[in-house]
Amino acid sequence: MVGRTVAGMTNNPPVTVLGLGAMGRALARTLLAAGHPTTVWNRTPGKDDELVAAGAVRAATVADAVAAHRIVLACLLTNDTVDEVLTGVPLDGRILVNLTNGTPAQARALATAYGPDRYLDGGIMAVPPTIGGPHAFVLYSGSAPAYDEARPALETFGEARYLGADPGLAALHDIALLSGMYGMVGGVLHALALVRAAGVSATGFAPLLTRWLTAMAGGVGRYAAQLDAGEYGRDVVSNLGMQAAAWDNLTDTARAEGVDPRLLAPLGDLMRRRAADHPDEDLTGIVELLKETA
Amino acid sequence: MVGRTVAGMTNNPPVTVLGLGAMGRALARTLLAAGHPTTVWNRTPGKDDELVAAGAVRAATVADAVAAHRIVLACLLTNDTVDEVLTGVPLDGRILVNLTNGTPAQARALATAYGPDRYLDGGIMAVPPTIGGPHAFVLYSGSAPAYDEARPALETFGEARYLGADPGLAALHDIALLSGMYGMVGGVLHALALVRAAGVSATGFAPLLTRWLTAMAGGVGRYAAQLDAGEYGRDVVSNLGMQAAAWDNLTDTARAEGVDPRLLAPLGDLMRRRAADHPDEDLTGIVELLKETA
Repeated sequence: MVGRTVAGMTNNPPVTVLGLGAMGRALARTLLAAGHPTTVWNRTPGKDDELVAAGAVRAATVADAVAAHRIVLACLLTNDTVDEVLTGVPLDGRILVNLTNGTPAQARALATAYGPDRYLDGGIMAVPPTIGGPHAFVLYSGSAPAYDEARPALETFGEARYLGADPGLAALHDIALLSGMYGMVGGVLHALALVRAAGVSATGFAPLLTRWLTAMAGGVGRYAAQLDAGEYGRDVVSNLGMQAAAWDNLTDTARAEGVDPRLLAPLGDLMRRRAADHPDEDLTGIVELLKETA
Repeated sequence: MVGRTVAGMTNNPPVTVLGLGAMGRALARTLLAAGHPTTVWNRTPGKDDELVAAGAVRAATVADAVAAHRIVLACLLTNDTVDEVLTGVPLDGRILVNLTNGTPAQARALATAYGPDRYLDGGIMAVPPTIGGPHAFVLYSGSAPAYDEARPALETFGEARYLGADPGLAALHDIALLSGMYGMVGGVLHALALVRAAGVSATGFAPLLTRWLTAMAGGVGRYAAQLDAGEYGRDVVSNLGMQAAAWDNLTDTARAEGVDPRLLAPLGDLMRRRAADHPDEDLTGIVELLKETA
Protein backbone atom coordinates (compact mmCIF):
# COMPACT_ATOMS: atom_id res chain seq x y z
CA MET A 1 0.00 0.00 0.00
CA VAL A 2 3.07 2.24 0.41
CA GLY A 3 3.18 3.14 -3.24
CA ARG A 4 -0.35 4.35 -3.43
CA THR A 5 0.48 7.22 -1.11
CA VAL A 6 3.38 8.50 -3.21
CA ALA A 7 2.61 11.89 -4.76
CA GLY A 8 1.27 11.54 -8.26
CA MET A 9 0.45 7.82 -8.00
CA THR A 10 -3.04 6.68 -8.78
CA ASN A 11 -4.68 3.30 -8.88
CA ASN A 12 -3.71 3.21 -12.56
CA PRO A 13 0.04 3.79 -12.26
CA PRO A 14 1.88 4.13 -15.58
CA VAL A 15 3.99 1.15 -16.61
CA THR A 16 6.85 0.45 -19.00
CA VAL A 17 6.89 -2.94 -20.71
CA LEU A 18 10.22 -4.24 -22.03
CA GLY A 19 9.87 -7.17 -24.41
CA LEU A 20 7.01 -7.58 -26.87
CA GLY A 21 6.89 -11.26 -27.59
CA ALA A 22 3.48 -12.91 -27.38
CA MET A 23 3.46 -12.63 -23.57
CA GLY A 24 4.83 -9.06 -23.42
CA ARG A 25 2.20 -7.91 -25.92
CA ALA A 26 -0.56 -9.60 -23.91
CA LEU A 27 0.65 -7.83 -20.74
CA ALA A 28 0.79 -4.42 -22.46
CA ARG A 29 -2.64 -4.93 -24.05
CA THR A 30 -4.11 -5.80 -20.67
CA LEU A 31 -2.55 -2.77 -18.98
CA LEU A 32 -3.85 -0.45 -21.70
CA ALA A 33 -7.33 -1.96 -21.51
CA ALA A 34 -7.33 -1.34 -17.75
CA GLY A 35 -6.38 2.32 -18.21
CA HIS A 36 -2.69 2.24 -17.28
CA PRO A 37 -0.55 4.65 -19.33
CA THR A 38 1.87 2.22 -20.98
CA THR A 39 5.22 2.73 -22.66
CA VAL A 40 6.56 -0.18 -24.71
CA TRP A 41 9.94 -1.21 -26.07
CA ASN A 42 11.27 -4.22 -27.93
CA ARG A 43 14.82 -4.99 -29.03
CA THR A 44 13.75 -5.72 -32.59
CA PRO A 45 11.24 -3.27 -34.05
CA GLY A 46 7.83 -3.94 -35.61
CA LYS A 47 6.12 -5.64 -32.68
CA ASP A 48 4.32 -2.60 -31.27
CA ASP A 49 2.00 -1.33 -34.01
CA GLU A 50 -1.13 -2.85 -32.52
CA LEU A 51 -0.17 -1.58 -29.05
CA VAL A 52 0.54 1.96 -30.25
CA ALA A 53 -2.83 1.92 -32.03
CA ALA A 54 -4.36 0.97 -28.67
CA GLY A 55 -2.69 3.94 -26.95
CA ALA A 56 0.78 2.75 -25.96
CA VAL A 57 3.77 5.09 -26.23
CA ARG A 58 6.67 3.70 -28.27
CA ALA A 59 10.09 4.25 -26.68
CA ALA A 60 13.00 4.59 -29.09
CA THR A 61 15.56 3.10 -26.72
CA VAL A 62 15.47 0.92 -23.63
CA ALA A 63 16.91 3.86 -21.66
CA ASP A 64 14.00 6.05 -22.79
CA ALA A 65 11.55 3.29 -21.84
CA VAL A 66 13.02 2.91 -18.36
CA ALA A 67 13.18 6.67 -17.89
CA ALA A 68 9.48 7.01 -18.77
CA HIS A 69 7.89 5.38 -15.71
CA ARG A 70 8.71 4.21 -12.21
CA ILE A 71 7.29 0.71 -12.75
CA VAL A 72 9.35 -1.22 -15.32
CA LEU A 73 8.13 -4.65 -16.38
CA ALA A 74 10.52 -6.98 -18.20
CA CYS A 75 9.23 -9.97 -20.14
CA LEU A 76 12.13 -11.14 -22.27
CA LEU A 77 13.33 -14.42 -23.71
CA THR A 78 15.76 -15.33 -20.92
CA ASN A 79 17.34 -13.69 -17.91
CA ASP A 80 20.55 -13.36 -19.90
CA THR A 81 18.56 -11.11 -22.22
CA VAL A 82 17.37 -9.07 -19.22
CA ASP A 83 20.98 -8.52 -18.22
CA GLU A 84 22.07 -7.62 -21.75
CA VAL A 85 19.18 -5.21 -22.23
CA LEU A 86 19.55 -3.41 -18.90
CA THR A 87 23.35 -3.20 -18.72
CA GLY A 88 24.28 0.46 -18.43
CA VAL A 89 20.68 1.64 -18.05
CA PRO A 90 20.17 3.64 -14.83
CA LEU A 91 17.44 2.11 -12.66
CA ASP A 92 17.51 4.74 -9.91
CA GLY A 93 14.03 5.38 -8.60
CA ARG A 94 12.64 2.47 -10.58
CA ILE A 95 10.87 -0.74 -9.63
CA LEU A 96 11.91 -3.67 -11.81
CA VAL A 97 9.25 -6.36 -12.15
CA ASN A 98 10.90 -9.25 -13.98
CA LEU A 99 8.37 -11.65 -15.52
CA THR A 100 10.95 -13.42 -17.69
CA ASN A 101 11.06 -17.22 -17.36
CA GLY A 102 14.04 -18.29 -15.30
CA THR A 103 15.41 -20.15 -12.32
CA PRO A 104 15.41 -19.17 -8.62
CA ALA A 105 19.19 -18.72 -8.80
CA GLN A 106 18.87 -16.31 -11.73
CA ALA A 107 16.20 -14.31 -9.89
CA ARG A 108 18.41 -14.02 -6.80
CA ALA A 109 21.38 -12.92 -8.90
CA LEU A 110 19.32 -10.24 -10.66
CA ALA A 111 17.95 -8.99 -7.34
CA THR A 112 21.49 -8.64 -6.03
CA ALA A 113 22.69 -6.95 -9.23
CA TYR A 114 19.82 -4.46 -9.54
CA GLY A 115 19.04 -3.91 -5.86
CA PRO A 116 16.87 -6.17 -3.68
CA ASP A 117 14.77 -3.18 -2.58
CA ARG A 118 13.50 -2.48 -6.06
CA TYR A 119 13.47 -5.99 -7.57
CA LEU A 120 10.32 -8.07 -7.86
CA ASP A 121 10.35 -11.41 -9.66
CA GLY A 122 7.29 -12.99 -11.18
CA GLY A 123 6.19 -16.34 -12.59
CA ILE A 124 3.23 -16.16 -14.96
CA MET A 125 0.95 -19.20 -14.68
CA ALA A 126 -0.96 -18.53 -17.88
CA VAL A 127 -0.47 -18.45 -21.61
CA PRO A 128 -0.75 -15.18 -23.53
CA PRO A 129 -4.40 -15.61 -24.66
CA THR A 130 -5.56 -16.09 -21.05
CA ILE A 131 -3.76 -13.06 -19.53
CA GLY A 132 -6.34 -10.88 -17.81
CA GLY A 133 -8.84 -13.74 -17.77
CA PRO A 134 -10.44 -15.43 -14.78
CA HIS A 135 -8.01 -18.38 -14.63
CA ALA A 136 -4.67 -16.58 -14.96
CA PHE A 137 -2.51 -16.19 -11.92
CA VAL A 138 0.93 -14.76 -11.39
CA LEU A 139 3.31 -15.55 -8.53
CA TYR A 140 5.58 -12.80 -7.17
CA SER A 141 8.52 -12.68 -4.78
CA GLY A 142 11.16 -10.15 -3.81
CA SER A 143 10.68 -6.61 -2.51
CA ALA A 144 7.40 -6.30 -0.63
CA PRO A 145 7.16 -2.50 -1.00
CA ALA A 146 7.73 -2.89 -4.76
CA TYR A 147 4.94 -5.46 -4.88
CA ASP A 148 2.57 -3.22 -2.96
CA GLU A 149 3.25 -0.30 -5.26
CA ALA A 150 3.00 -2.25 -8.52
CA ARG A 151 0.02 -4.32 -7.39
CA PRO A 152 -2.75 -2.28 -9.09
CA ALA A 153 -0.97 -2.89 -12.41
CA LEU A 154 -0.09 -6.51 -11.66
CA GLU A 155 -3.63 -7.39 -10.68
CA THR A 156 -4.82 -6.58 -14.19
CA PHE A 157 -3.04 -9.74 -15.42
CA GLY A 158 -4.95 -12.14 -13.18
CA GLU A 159 -4.81 -13.19 -9.57
CA ALA A 160 -1.58 -11.91 -8.00
CA ARG A 161 0.05 -13.90 -5.22
CA TYR A 162 3.02 -12.63 -3.23
CA LEU A 163 5.15 -15.48 -1.87
CA GLY A 164 7.81 -13.72 0.18
CA ALA A 165 10.97 -11.62 0.20
CA ASP A 166 13.28 -14.30 -1.24
CA PRO A 167 13.33 -13.26 -4.92
CA GLY A 168 13.77 -16.93 -5.94
CA LEU A 169 10.42 -18.11 -4.55
CA ALA A 170 8.30 -17.14 -7.55
CA ALA A 171 10.58 -19.00 -9.98
CA LEU A 172 10.74 -21.99 -7.63
CA HIS A 173 6.96 -22.26 -7.49
CA ASP A 174 6.64 -21.55 -11.21
CA ILE A 175 9.08 -24.33 -12.09
CA ALA A 176 7.54 -26.77 -9.63
CA LEU A 177 4.11 -26.15 -11.18
CA LEU A 178 5.52 -26.53 -14.70
CA SER A 179 7.25 -29.75 -13.64
CA GLY A 180 3.94 -31.15 -12.43
CA MET A 181 2.31 -30.07 -15.67
CA TYR A 182 5.01 -31.62 -17.86
CA GLY A 183 4.64 -34.89 -16.00
CA MET A 184 0.92 -34.80 -16.70
CA VAL A 185 1.44 -33.85 -20.34
CA GLY A 186 3.86 -36.75 -20.80
CA GLY A 187 1.24 -39.13 -19.40
CA VAL A 188 -1.45 -37.56 -21.56
CA LEU A 189 0.56 -37.88 -24.76
CA HIS A 190 1.37 -41.50 -23.97
CA ALA A 191 -2.32 -42.20 -23.27
CA LEU A 192 -3.53 -40.49 -26.44
CA ALA A 193 -0.89 -42.22 -28.56
CA LEU A 194 -2.00 -45.54 -27.06
CA VAL A 195 -5.71 -45.21 -27.76
CA ARG A 196 -5.04 -43.92 -31.26
CA ALA A 197 -2.69 -46.81 -31.99
CA ALA A 198 -5.53 -49.13 -30.96
CA GLY A 199 -7.92 -47.43 -33.38
CA VAL A 200 -9.82 -45.34 -30.81
CA SER A 201 -10.44 -41.64 -31.43
CA ALA A 202 -8.32 -39.44 -29.18
CA THR A 203 -10.99 -36.76 -29.35
CA GLY A 204 -13.61 -39.24 -28.18
CA PHE A 205 -11.37 -40.43 -25.35
CA ALA A 206 -10.27 -36.94 -24.23
CA PRO A 207 -13.26 -36.01 -22.01
CA LEU A 208 -12.83 -39.25 -20.03
CA LEU A 209 -9.12 -38.51 -19.55
CA THR A 210 -9.75 -34.91 -18.50
CA ARG A 211 -12.33 -36.06 -15.99
CA TRP A 212 -10.03 -38.75 -14.60
CA LEU A 213 -7.01 -36.44 -14.28
CA THR A 214 -9.15 -33.77 -12.64
CA ALA A 215 -10.34 -36.32 -10.07
CA MET A 216 -6.81 -37.62 -9.50
CA ALA A 217 -5.38 -34.09 -9.11
CA GLY A 218 -7.37 -33.99 -5.88
CA GLY A 219 -4.93 -36.56 -4.47
CA VAL A 220 -2.00 -34.12 -4.45
CA GLY A 221 -2.82 -33.03 -0.90
CA ARG A 222 -2.57 -36.58 0.42
CA TYR A 223 0.85 -37.07 -1.19
CA ALA A 224 2.00 -33.70 0.18
CA ALA A 225 0.92 -34.64 3.71
CA GLN A 226 2.80 -37.94 3.47
CA LEU A 227 5.94 -36.13 2.30
CA ASP A 228 5.81 -33.37 4.91
CA ALA A 229 5.32 -35.99 7.63
CA GLY A 230 7.98 -38.28 6.14
CA GLU A 231 5.41 -41.06 6.55
CA TYR A 232 5.13 -42.75 3.18
CA GLY A 233 2.98 -45.50 4.64
CA ARG A 234 0.26 -43.20 6.00
CA ASP A 235 -3.25 -43.22 4.51
CA VAL A 236 -2.20 -45.59 1.72
CA VAL A 237 -5.03 -46.25 -0.72
CA SER A 238 -3.20 -48.64 -3.04
CA ASN A 239 0.17 -49.86 -1.89
CA LEU A 240 3.37 -49.73 -3.89
CA GLY A 241 3.73 -53.51 -4.01
CA MET A 242 0.39 -53.92 -5.79
CA GLN A 243 1.02 -50.98 -8.09
CA ALA A 244 4.48 -52.24 -9.04
CA ALA A 245 3.06 -55.72 -9.71
CA ALA A 246 0.51 -54.26 -12.15
CA TRP A 247 3.05 -52.06 -13.92
CA ASP A 248 3.82 -54.59 -16.65
CA ASN A 249 0.20 -54.31 -17.80
CA LEU A 250 0.91 -50.70 -18.77
CA THR A 251 4.12 -51.32 -20.63
CA ASP A 252 2.95 -54.58 -22.23
CA THR A 253 -0.19 -52.87 -23.55
CA ALA A 254 1.79 -49.94 -24.93
CA ARG A 255 4.29 -52.21 -26.68
CA ALA A 256 1.52 -54.43 -28.06
CA GLU A 257 0.11 -51.33 -29.78
CA GLY A 258 3.51 -50.14 -31.00
CA VAL A 259 3.87 -47.30 -28.50
CA ASP A 260 7.25 -46.87 -26.83
CA PRO A 261 6.56 -46.51 -23.06
CA ARG A 262 9.68 -44.45 -22.40
CA LEU A 263 7.80 -41.46 -20.98
CA LEU A 264 6.55 -43.60 -18.09
CA ALA A 265 9.53 -45.95 -17.76
CA PRO A 266 11.48 -44.03 -15.08
CA LEU A 267 8.49 -44.08 -12.72
CA GLY A 268 8.10 -47.83 -13.22
CA ASP A 269 11.77 -48.37 -12.46
CA LEU A 270 11.61 -46.31 -9.27
CA MET A 271 8.38 -48.05 -8.18
CA ARG A 272 9.90 -51.47 -8.57
CA ARG A 273 13.09 -50.53 -6.76
CA ARG A 274 11.25 -48.96 -3.84
CA ALA A 275 8.59 -51.69 -3.68
CA ALA A 276 11.28 -54.34 -3.25
CA ASP A 277 12.00 -53.02 0.26
CA HIS A 278 8.86 -51.01 1.05
CA PRO A 279 5.86 -52.76 -0.53
CA ASP A 280 3.39 -51.28 1.98
CA GLU A 281 4.25 -47.67 1.30
CA ASP A 282 2.43 -45.31 -1.03
CA LEU A 283 4.02 -44.00 -4.24
CA THR A 284 5.51 -41.08 -2.32
CA GLY A 285 8.31 -43.36 -1.06
CA ILE A 286 10.03 -43.08 -4.44
CA VAL A 287 11.13 -39.51 -3.66
CA GLU A 288 13.82 -41.08 -1.49
CA LEU A 289 15.33 -42.45 -4.71
CA LEU A 290 15.27 -39.02 -6.35
CA LYS A 291 17.80 -37.87 -3.77
CA GLU A 292 20.33 -40.57 -4.57
CA THR A 293 22.23 -39.37 -7.58
CA ALA A 294 21.54 -35.66 -7.30
CA MET B 1 -32.52 -54.76 -21.21
CA VAL B 2 -32.76 -58.37 -22.37
CA GLY B 3 -31.75 -59.75 -19.01
CA ARG B 4 -34.44 -57.96 -17.10
CA THR B 5 -37.12 -59.96 -18.91
CA VAL B 6 -35.68 -63.35 -17.96
CA ALA B 7 -37.97 -65.21 -15.56
CA GLY B 8 -36.98 -64.68 -11.96
CA MET B 9 -34.76 -61.65 -12.64
CA THR B 10 -35.50 -58.49 -10.74
CA ASN B 11 -33.79 -55.15 -10.63
CA ASN B 12 -31.74 -56.53 -7.75
CA PRO B 13 -30.32 -59.65 -9.42
CA PRO B 14 -28.25 -61.89 -7.13
CA VAL B 15 -24.50 -61.80 -7.69
CA THR B 16 -21.49 -63.96 -6.87
CA VAL B 17 -18.24 -62.17 -6.06
CA LEU B 18 -14.98 -64.11 -6.50
CA GLY B 19 -12.00 -62.49 -4.83
CA LEU B 20 -12.18 -60.57 -1.57
CA GLY B 21 -9.18 -58.27 -1.65
CA ALA B 22 -9.83 -54.64 -0.76
CA MET B 23 -11.62 -54.06 -4.08
CA GLY B 24 -13.64 -57.29 -4.06
CA ARG B 25 -14.83 -56.57 -0.53
CA ALA B 26 -15.85 -53.04 -1.54
CA LEU B 27 -17.84 -54.43 -4.48
CA ALA B 28 -19.60 -57.03 -2.31
CA ARG B 29 -20.36 -54.47 0.40
CA THR B 30 -21.87 -52.14 -2.17
CA LEU B 31 -24.02 -54.91 -3.69
CA LEU B 32 -25.30 -55.91 -0.27
CA ALA B 33 -26.08 -52.33 0.67
CA ALA B 34 -28.09 -51.97 -2.56
CA GLY B 35 -30.13 -55.08 -1.79
CA HIS B 36 -28.53 -57.62 -4.14
CA PRO B 37 -28.36 -61.14 -2.68
CA THR B 38 -24.61 -61.76 -2.71
CA THR B 39 -22.53 -64.92 -2.47
CA VAL B 40 -18.83 -64.49 -1.78
CA TRP B 41 -15.74 -66.64 -2.15
CA ASN B 42 -12.03 -66.10 -1.67
CA ARG B 43 -9.15 -68.47 -2.31
CA THR B 44 -7.67 -67.91 1.14
CA PRO B 45 -10.23 -67.86 3.97
CA GLY B 46 -10.86 -65.21 6.61
CA LYS B 47 -11.70 -62.27 4.35
CA ASP B 48 -15.48 -62.56 4.45
CA ASP B 49 -16.50 -62.18 8.11
CA GLU B 50 -17.62 -58.59 7.76
CA LEU B 51 -19.51 -59.41 4.54
CA VAL B 52 -21.28 -62.43 6.04
CA ALA B 53 -22.27 -60.24 8.99
CA ALA B 54 -23.75 -57.83 6.43
CA GLY B 55 -25.81 -60.61 4.84
CA ALA B 56 -23.53 -62.28 2.30
CA VAL B 57 -23.60 -66.03 1.79
CA ARG B 58 -20.20 -67.72 2.13
CA ALA B 59 -19.47 -70.32 -0.56
CA ALA B 60 -17.22 -73.20 0.46
CA THR B 61 -15.75 -73.70 -3.02
CA VAL B 62 -15.42 -71.64 -6.17
CA ALA B 63 -17.70 -74.20 -7.92
CA ASP B 64 -20.38 -73.62 -5.27
CA ALA B 65 -19.99 -69.87 -5.66
CA VAL B 66 -20.35 -70.03 -9.45
CA ALA B 67 -23.30 -72.42 -9.16
CA ALA B 68 -25.11 -70.06 -6.80
CA HIS B 69 -25.99 -67.22 -9.22
CA ARG B 70 -26.12 -66.38 -12.89
CA ILE B 71 -24.02 -63.22 -12.56
CA VAL B 72 -20.45 -64.05 -11.51
CA LEU B 73 -18.10 -61.18 -10.77
CA ALA B 74 -14.37 -61.85 -10.60
CA CYS B 75 -12.00 -59.39 -8.95
CA LEU B 76 -8.73 -61.24 -8.48
CA LEU B 77 -5.06 -60.34 -8.34
CA THR B 78 -4.26 -61.01 -12.00
CA ASN B 79 -5.90 -62.64 -15.00
CA ASP B 80 -3.65 -65.66 -14.48
CA THR B 81 -5.42 -66.05 -11.14
CA VAL B 82 -8.79 -65.86 -12.91
CA ASP B 83 -7.73 -68.69 -15.16
CA GLU B 84 -6.38 -70.79 -12.28
CA VAL B 85 -9.50 -70.27 -10.20
CA LEU B 86 -12.03 -71.01 -12.95
CA THR B 87 -10.27 -73.94 -14.61
CA GLY B 88 -12.64 -76.91 -14.51
CA VAL B 89 -15.55 -74.88 -13.13
CA PRO B 90 -18.65 -75.13 -15.38
CA LEU B 91 -19.80 -71.67 -16.51
CA ASP B 92 -22.88 -72.85 -18.44
CA GLY B 93 -25.70 -70.39 -18.07
CA ARG B 94 -23.44 -67.91 -16.33
CA ILE B 95 -22.36 -64.36 -17.10
CA LEU B 96 -18.74 -63.73 -16.19
CA VAL B 97 -17.96 -60.10 -15.35
CA ASN B 98 -14.20 -59.86 -14.97
CA LEU B 99 -13.11 -56.77 -13.05
CA THR B 100 -9.54 -57.99 -12.55
CA ASN B 101 -6.78 -55.62 -13.66
CA GLY B 102 -5.27 -56.75 -16.93
CA THR B 103 -4.38 -55.99 -20.51
CA PRO B 104 -6.62 -55.88 -23.60
CA ALA B 105 -4.91 -59.03 -24.91
CA GLN B 106 -5.69 -60.90 -21.69
CA ALA B 107 -9.33 -59.80 -21.81
CA ARG B 108 -9.66 -61.02 -25.41
CA ALA B 109 -8.06 -64.36 -24.54
CA LEU B 110 -10.43 -64.86 -21.59
CA ALA B 111 -13.44 -63.97 -23.73
CA THR B 112 -12.38 -66.58 -26.25
CA ALA B 113 -11.72 -69.18 -23.56
CA TYR B 114 -14.94 -68.67 -21.60
CA GLY B 115 -17.26 -67.72 -24.44
CA PRO B 116 -17.62 -64.23 -25.95
CA ASP B 117 -21.39 -64.33 -25.45
CA ARG B 118 -21.14 -64.50 -21.69
CA TYR B 119 -17.93 -62.58 -21.06
CA LEU B 120 -17.89 -58.96 -19.94
CA ASP B 121 -14.64 -57.24 -19.04
CA GLY B 122 -14.44 -54.22 -16.76
CA GLY B 123 -11.95 -51.57 -15.73
CA ILE B 124 -12.65 -49.94 -12.38
CA MET B 125 -11.69 -46.26 -12.33
CA ALA B 126 -11.88 -45.89 -8.57
CA VAL B 127 -10.14 -47.04 -5.42
CA PRO B 128 -11.94 -49.28 -2.93
CA PRO B 129 -13.07 -46.50 -0.53
CA THR B 130 -14.81 -44.62 -3.36
CA ILE B 131 -16.73 -47.58 -4.82
CA GLY B 132 -20.41 -46.69 -4.86
CA GLY B 133 -19.62 -43.00 -4.44
CA PRO B 134 -20.44 -40.15 -6.82
CA HIS B 135 -17.02 -40.06 -8.54
CA ALA B 136 -16.48 -43.77 -9.23
CA PHE B 137 -16.90 -45.02 -12.76
CA VAL B 138 -16.37 -48.40 -14.34
CA LEU B 139 -15.71 -49.11 -18.01
CA TYR B 140 -17.13 -52.27 -19.60
CA SER B 141 -16.66 -54.07 -22.89
CA GLY B 142 -17.57 -57.45 -24.32
CA SER B 143 -20.99 -59.07 -24.56
CA ALA B 144 -23.73 -56.43 -24.84
CA PRO B 145 -26.54 -58.75 -23.62
CA ALA B 146 -24.40 -59.67 -20.60
CA TYR B 147 -23.88 -55.98 -19.89
CA ASP B 148 -27.60 -55.26 -20.15
CA GLU B 149 -28.47 -58.07 -17.79
CA ALA B 150 -25.80 -57.28 -15.20
CA ARG B 151 -26.28 -53.54 -15.40
CA PRO B 152 -28.53 -53.09 -12.33
CA ALA B 153 -25.81 -54.69 -10.23
CA LEU B 154 -22.94 -52.91 -12.00
CA GLU B 155 -24.54 -49.51 -11.60
CA THR B 156 -24.33 -49.81 -7.82
CA PHE B 157 -20.53 -49.41 -8.09
CA GLY B 158 -20.65 -46.03 -9.81
CA GLU B 159 -21.29 -44.73 -13.29
CA ALA B 160 -21.21 -47.65 -15.75
CA ARG B 161 -20.00 -47.05 -19.29
CA TYR B 162 -20.20 -49.68 -22.02
CA LEU B 163 -17.52 -49.19 -24.68
CA GLY B 164 -18.30 -51.89 -27.23
CA ALA B 165 -18.23 -55.58 -28.09
CA ASP B 166 -14.42 -55.90 -28.33
CA PRO B 167 -13.66 -57.32 -24.86
CA GLY B 168 -10.27 -55.54 -24.89
CA LEU B 169 -11.71 -52.02 -24.98
CA ALA B 170 -12.30 -51.62 -21.25
CA ALA B 171 -8.73 -52.65 -20.39
CA LEU B 172 -7.38 -50.41 -23.16
CA HIS B 173 -9.22 -47.38 -21.79
CA ASP B 174 -8.39 -48.33 -18.21
CA ILE B 175 -4.68 -48.59 -18.98
CA ALA B 176 -4.66 -45.41 -21.03
CA LEU B 177 -6.27 -43.53 -18.12
CA LEU B 178 -3.82 -45.06 -15.64
CA SER B 179 -0.95 -44.10 -17.95
CA GLY B 180 -2.13 -40.50 -17.94
CA MET B 181 -2.46 -40.60 -14.17
CA TYR B 182 1.00 -42.09 -13.64
CA GLY B 183 2.51 -39.36 -15.79
CA MET B 184 0.76 -36.78 -13.63
CA VAL B 185 1.82 -38.50 -10.41
CA GLY B 186 5.44 -38.56 -11.58
CA GLY B 187 5.27 -34.82 -12.24
CA VAL B 188 3.56 -34.24 -8.90
CA LEU B 189 6.17 -36.18 -6.93
CA HIS B 190 8.98 -34.33 -8.71
CA ALA B 191 7.28 -31.00 -7.96
CA LEU B 192 6.66 -31.81 -4.29
CA ALA B 193 10.21 -33.11 -3.85
CA LEU B 194 11.50 -29.88 -5.39
CA VAL B 195 9.60 -27.45 -3.18
CA ARG B 196 10.42 -29.47 -0.08
CA ALA B 197 14.11 -29.55 -0.98
CA ALA B 198 13.95 -25.74 -1.19
CA GLY B 199 12.41 -25.54 2.28
CA VAL B 200 8.81 -24.92 1.19
CA SER B 201 5.96 -26.92 2.74
CA ALA B 202 4.49 -29.45 0.31
CA THR B 203 1.16 -29.18 2.09
CA GLY B 204 1.18 -25.41 1.63
CA PHE B 205 2.08 -25.76 -2.05
CA ALA B 206 -0.42 -28.56 -2.79
CA PRO B 207 -3.58 -26.47 -3.36
CA LEU B 208 -1.75 -24.36 -5.94
CA LEU B 209 -0.55 -27.49 -7.75
CA THR B 210 -4.00 -29.09 -7.70
CA ARG B 211 -5.52 -25.94 -9.13
CA TRP B 212 -2.87 -25.68 -11.82
CA LEU B 213 -3.15 -29.32 -12.88
CA THR B 214 -6.93 -29.09 -12.94
CA ALA B 215 -6.70 -26.08 -15.24
CA MET B 216 -4.12 -27.78 -17.46
CA ALA B 217 -6.18 -31.00 -17.68
CA GLY B 218 -8.59 -28.91 -19.73
CA GLY B 219 -5.98 -28.84 -22.51
CA VAL B 220 -6.28 -32.56 -23.23
CA GLY B 221 -8.97 -31.94 -25.83
CA ARG B 222 -6.73 -29.61 -27.83
CA TYR B 223 -3.91 -32.19 -27.89
CA ALA B 224 -6.39 -34.90 -28.90
CA ALA B 225 -7.70 -32.79 -31.78
CA GLN B 226 -4.15 -32.16 -33.02
CA LEU B 227 -3.37 -35.89 -32.89
CA ASP B 228 -6.58 -37.01 -34.60
CA ALA B 229 -5.99 -34.45 -37.35
CA GLY B 230 -2.27 -35.28 -37.57
CA GLU B 231 -1.70 -31.52 -37.43
CA TYR B 232 0.79 -30.91 -34.66
CA GLY B 233 1.13 -27.27 -35.64
CA ARG B 234 -2.57 -26.43 -35.28
CA ASP B 235 -3.79 -24.08 -32.52
CA VAL B 236 -0.34 -23.93 -30.95
CA VAL B 237 -0.33 -21.89 -27.74
CA SER B 238 3.36 -22.21 -26.90
CA ASN B 239 5.58 -23.72 -29.54
CA LEU B 240 7.97 -26.60 -29.04
CA GLY B 241 11.05 -24.51 -29.83
CA MET B 242 10.31 -22.11 -26.98
CA GLN B 243 9.39 -24.90 -24.60
CA ALA B 244 12.54 -26.87 -25.41
CA ALA B 245 14.67 -23.74 -24.94
CA ALA B 246 13.23 -23.24 -21.43
CA TRP B 247 13.64 -26.90 -20.46
CA ASP B 248 17.06 -26.41 -18.84
CA ASN B 249 15.43 -24.10 -16.28
CA LEU B 250 13.49 -27.12 -14.99
CA THR B 251 16.39 -29.50 -14.76
CA ASP B 252 18.88 -26.88 -13.52
CA THR B 253 16.50 -25.89 -10.72
CA ALA B 254 15.91 -29.49 -9.72
CA ARG B 255 19.63 -30.28 -9.63
CA ALA B 256 20.40 -27.08 -7.72
CA GLU B 257 18.04 -28.33 -5.00
CA GLY B 258 19.44 -31.87 -5.08
CA VAL B 259 16.47 -33.44 -6.86
CA ASP B 260 17.24 -35.91 -9.64
CA PRO B 261 15.06 -34.87 -12.63
CA ARG B 262 14.89 -38.38 -14.07
CA LEU B 263 11.08 -38.57 -13.99
CA LEU B 264 10.86 -35.70 -16.47
CA ALA B 265 14.04 -36.38 -18.45
CA PRO B 266 12.52 -38.51 -21.26
CA LEU B 267 10.03 -35.77 -22.15
CA GLY B 268 12.84 -33.20 -22.28
CA ASP B 269 14.87 -35.46 -24.58
CA LEU B 270 11.93 -35.99 -26.94
CA MET B 271 11.09 -32.28 -26.94
CA ARG B 272 14.61 -31.32 -27.89
CA ARG B 273 14.84 -33.95 -30.64
CA ARG B 274 11.50 -32.98 -32.16
CA ALA B 275 12.09 -29.23 -31.75
CA ALA B 276 15.30 -29.47 -33.77
CA ASP B 277 13.28 -30.13 -36.93
CA HIS B 278 9.79 -28.91 -35.93
CA PRO B 279 10.18 -25.87 -33.67
CA ASP B 280 6.76 -24.44 -34.59
CA GLU B 281 4.79 -27.52 -33.63
CA ASP B 282 3.01 -28.11 -30.34
CA LEU B 283 4.18 -30.76 -27.86
CA THR B 284 2.00 -33.35 -29.60
CA GLY B 285 4.63 -33.75 -32.32
CA ILE B 286 6.71 -35.89 -29.96
CA VAL B 287 4.30 -38.82 -30.38
CA GLU B 288 6.00 -39.41 -33.73
CA LEU B 289 9.11 -40.32 -31.75
CA LEU B 290 7.19 -42.77 -29.57
CA LYS B 291 6.62 -44.86 -32.69
CA GLU B 292 10.28 -45.21 -33.56
CA THR B 293 11.63 -47.97 -31.40
CA ALA B 294 8.37 -49.75 -30.66
